[in-house]
Amino acid sequence: MSEQGLLIVVSGPSGAGKSTVISKVMSDDPSCVFSISATTRPPRGTEQNGVEYFFVDRERFESMIKSGELLEYAEYVGNYYGTPKAPVFESLNRGKNVIFDIEVQGAMQIKQKCPNAALIFIVPPSFSEIEKRLRGRHTDSESKILQRLETARSEYAQAINYDYIVINDDPQKAANEVKAIISAEKCRVEFRKKYVLEV
Amino acid sequence: MSEQGLLIVVSGPSGAGKSTVISKVMSDDPSCVFSISATTRPPRGTEQNGVEYFFVDRERFESMIKSGELLEYAEYVGNYYGTPKAPVFESLNRGKNVIFDIEVQGAMQIKQKCPNAALIFIVPPSFSEIEKRLRGRHTDSESKILQRLETARSEYAQAINYDYIVINDDPQKAANEVKAIISAEKCRVEFRKKYVLEV
Repeated sequence: MSEQGLLIVVSGPSGAGKSTVISKVMSDDPSCVFSISATTRPPRGTEQNGVEYFFVDRERFESMIKSGELLEYAEYVGNYYGTPKAPVFESLNRGKNVIFDIEVQGAMQIKQKCPNAALIFIVPPSFSEIEKRLRGRHTDSESKILQRLETARSEYAQAINYDYIVINDDPQKAANEVKAIISAEKCRVEFRKKYVLEV
Repeated sequence: MSEQGLLIVVSGPSGAGKSTVISKVMSDDPSCVFSISATTRPPRGTEQNGVEYFFVDRERFESMIKSGELLEYAEYVGNYYGTPKAPVFESLNRGKNVIFDIEVQGAMQIKQKCPNAALIFIVPPSFSEIEKRLRGRHTDSESKILQRLETARSEYAQAINYDYIVINDDPQKAANEVKAIISAEKCRVEFRKKYVLEV
């Protein structure tokens, strides 16, 4: 039987470069799988259903909430985001580490339900980078950008409730820090009690 | 000004291979320095004064206790072991991570005084390895070996109060885990608050 996997929650403001860092971690570490969230927001750029997200309509999302299919969910900048439970627990039982890219409200729900989850908040080296990166992306309207900046500010205020802060000044360096966190968390006494009990 | 360093406490029963693992960590990671303990036990093998330990007599050790020069101290298998304070804080202020090789009582004293210290307990893959390694070392008498085994058993019982458990089935793999723990600990929110406060 393989060892139980780890839950790794990654949050961070839009423009922090989370997705790039997570992709690097995933490609470097085959023991990690990505938790695919369900969302009601429309696909962006090259995003595909079942790869970055499960894209569903509000009616379907609300029925998932009602039937208890979600580990966590939240409404964020006008859209629902949530994590279907079943595939997560299946991966953990196969010994896979499951990486979540979710926002602050969802992260806090996970921490409450799974206290051993490791919560990582990714930030750029300075707050002004966020505006620069959001504008450079050319996917959002001006009002959407201002709304995202305001949201980012309130997210920063909650970073203090996370376990780790990773500074993304270089995506590979940030990915290495996330990988170190995963290795370290696997050494936590909670996971390795069996090696010291009953000798 | 460099970032404040980290305290890393490494404990483990005699025969767990702690010293080898610590040497590997030290030679791989130049940001780590080794805290040299003072002890009243006689030098073993090639051990040199001021390298592995400061070797002092009981009278000198007891005067260090009285004058408050020690961060922690304990009596262990008939000898005193303790950590002189001054060089530790000097290294931390220069941004160095200070690694301590100390036994369980001392580790608990450090955790109490410095709650951000990372406590690592190193064990061999199974308890029977300890006896095998102790006998293979040919440095202790039979009664000393039996005493060390009994001590090891009571140390295992306290491993649960550590933060991490590292299994030393391969010294390089164990050293990599210790290095991952150090990297991860440097990312803890307690050390990186300044990146998310007051944006």
